[in-house]
Amino acid sequence: MISVPCTAWFHNPVDTWKVGVKVRLGLNLRDSQAIRGEQVPHATIRPQGFPELKNDTFLRAAWGEDTDYTPVWCMRQAGRYLPEFRETRAAQDFFSTCRSPEACCELTLQPLHRFPLDAAIIFSDILVVPQALGMEVTMVPGKGPSFPEPLREECDLERLKHPATVASELGYVFQAITLTRQRLAGRVPLIGFAGAPWTLMTYMVEGGSSSTMAQAKRWLYQRPQASHRLLRILTDALVPYLVGQVAAGAQALQLFESHAGHLGPQLFSKFALPYIRDVAKQVKAQLQEAGLAPVPMIIFAKDGHFALEELAKAGYEVVGLDWTVAPKKARERVGKTVTLQGNLDPCALYASEEEIGRLVKQMLDDFGPQRYIANLGHGLYPDMDPKHVGAFVDAVHKHSRLLQQK
Amino acid sequence: MISVPCTAWFHNPVDTWKVGVKVRLGLNLRDSQAIRGEQVPHATIRPQGFPELKNDTFLRAAWGEDTDYTPVWCMRQAGRYLPEFRETRAAQDFFSTCRSPEACCELTLQPLHRFPLDAAIIFSDILVVPQALGMEVTMVPGKGPSFPEPLREECDLERLKHPATVASELGYVFQAITLTRQRLAGRVPLIGFAGAPWTLMTYMVEGGSSSTMAQAKRWLYQRPQASHRLLRILTDALVPYLVGQVAAGAQALQLFESHAGHLGPQLFSKFALPYIRDVAKQVKAQLQEAGLAPVPMIIFAKDGHFALEELAKAGYEVVGLDWTVAPKKARERVGKTVTLQGNLDPCALYASEEEIGRLVKQMLDDFGPQRYIANLGHGLYPDMDPKHVGAFVDAVHKHSRLLQQK
Repeated sequence: MISVPCTAWFHNPVDTWKVGVKVRLGLNLRDSQAIRGEQVPHATIRPQGFPELKNDTFLRAAWGEDTDYTPVWCMRQAGRYLPEFRETRAAQDFFSTCRSPEACCELTLQPLHRFPLDAAIIFSDILVVPQALGMEVTMVPGKGPSFPEPLREECDLERLKHPATVASELGYVFQAITLTRQRLAGRVPLIGFAGAPWTLMTYMVEGGSSSTMAQAKRWLYQRPQASHRLLRILTDALVPYLVGQVAAGAQALQLFESHAGHLGPQLFSKFALPYIRDVAKQVKAQLQEAGLAPVPMIIFAKDGHFALEELAKAGYEVVGLDWTVAPKKARERVGKTVTLQGNLDPCALYASEEEIGRLVKQMLDDFGPQRYIANLGHGLYPDMDPKHVGAFVDAVHKHSRLLQQK
Repeated sequence: MISVPCTAWFHNPVDTWKVGVKVRLGLNLRDSQAIRGEQVPHATIRPQGFPELKNDTFLRAAWGEDTDYTPVWCMRQAGRYLPEFRETRAAQDFFSTCRSPEACCELTLQPLHRFPLDAAIIFSDILVVPQALGMEVTMVPGKGPSFPEPLREECDLERLKHPATVASELGYVFQAITLTRQRLAGRVPLIGFAGAPWTLMTYMVEGGSSSTMAQAKRWLYQRPQASHRLLRILTDALVPYLVGQVAAGAQALQLFESHAGHLGPQLFSKFALPYIRDVAKQVKAQLQEAGLAPVPMIIFAKDGHFALEELAKAGYEVVGLDWTVAPKKARERVGKTVTLQGNLDPCALYASEEEIGRLVKQMLDDFGPQRYIANLGHGLYPDMDPKHVGAFVDAVHKHSRLLQQK
């Protein structure tokens, strides 16, 4: 077992996170090849001091191992569709909530109290990374995130802090993860996450949401070198941030390339894919260097249908799918070397519970019983009925068990 | 030659358009099969009284005939990126402009004065159809279209006028087309257009733009029958509207399924594709019945990558592509029976003129010299430099001529 002094960080996170991961954790190096071997089930490797994991179905599916049924979780499963979420969040502004480990822990656990989900995902936001790089971000209710001073010129990159300092700025996320891992009591694994470099860049340049990403794409065409500089800064910030999440207790990692669809195949291969690959490579190397057990990594490139083959070879154990890719075609394209995740149309949850069951059955039939994690093709929307989320989760469990018996 | 009393309509459009197309036009039936034969070039068949067409390259490419170079036009080529457009439009509100044949004609011709484009597209808006069905629509500057009373319940469908009346409500579009065809003086062909049923439905239900189309998709899942009823109303309105555009002088038609990407393969095959197919089938049948020569029809389903094969067999001569589909893969998927159109990333126009040339060359090399119409993968944006639009058009002409010589 690897010893991780999680309690120590939790009480004194800032000082702890100011030094390097390897020194900070004081761990013995361990051969991650052996950890990946079939003789040692991955789910049993975890930082010491956390409760034993009781349901490793999600992790097994992510690693490509056989499971008795199809595991399921929902993107944005902690969210505004839950009345208890709205009540908790009403007390303070969005990023204050993100900075409160107690609140993040509570919000992460809320959906678990209602539904027999097979994984929890830490409540946080992808924009904490631009914040940690020194950019001001506020969440405007009904509008979304807003950067009062987005990046306009190459010289604006000078305003950004050094990426190496980012992980120390984000101690509150690590605290939230450690606390949540403890409170989860081993019920299901905890997923950490981050936004991918291109997606973070869009927000930093656009200053918020955009239907065209024309400003951010203008950078790619007019300032390719500055764009690469920014994407490199983000990559260098993300790697220690994700490694830190694992050190803090995250048992899997998802990288969200939410704005992949704004890039065609050419731009994606130049400005997104190399950084997606590098994040996986560096995170794995640094986990090994720090003596931390590897965790499965998930890449979800929304609307990135054109890059499925490349994503399947980008160093991630799991490729997430939105709802625009047919399951059978996706499997044909990616081969058998990765686990697929997704891809029910989120709006399917507006259908009757009976219809949800029918759609889930079709999806499970098409993906087949193994190397698959059920999920929506995008996050839950605020006006969705929690009952229908429950119907989705139950349908996955029920139909996948029946499918396994065939 | 087919006799079309275009001048008569222009001066008395409302009375004229209140009666059926066949009676209204007083035309002799003509065998459209013969018109499609190789002995009779399509471009020479046109309503009588219009100036002879001097550049039929776009039409020849659309019909799959060989061309000396690759024709090019731009979606939203009449638009806010042109200072003269902003000046003309500043005088009145958006839909008043749409209702003025003189203004529409002027705006349609503006880009032709600057660039050697191979086609003109009538200035109008896809939302004139919901307006003609009785819905109030306003264009809010900086925000987009707004429906103060969107469709909320199935009973709201009762508010809509009968689809057969739509063409008579839209005489102003027909007038604009006839006037523009005259003023074009045969320089290039004139394209008419409409929004496809699903795309129009999204606006009518959402009441404006939306990033998720959750309200409209909620209809599909919760009220499939009412959704089909609405999509049928829209289809029944679109057919005479598009036939009327041809009768008025349009020499090609494009159907915009701009919101295809919100539907996955399943919803698209149920709620979009059948109506897309029906529009093509009915328009062609009614043109033949009215003794009007057939015109090439273009289907552009933005983000509809998952349906390329089906779209290529949907009854359209041309399939438009956004920038997320690689040219070679698109050709492999659709076969050789259709012409492809598109697909340069609109944001490529932010690049230097030299880089635009390089990107265009690559695109032309990938699509090959025949059965291809160059265009952007979506409309031009307001902040684009007209010079760069010119560079795009010139690069297409120059490189395609070189390519043909190989």
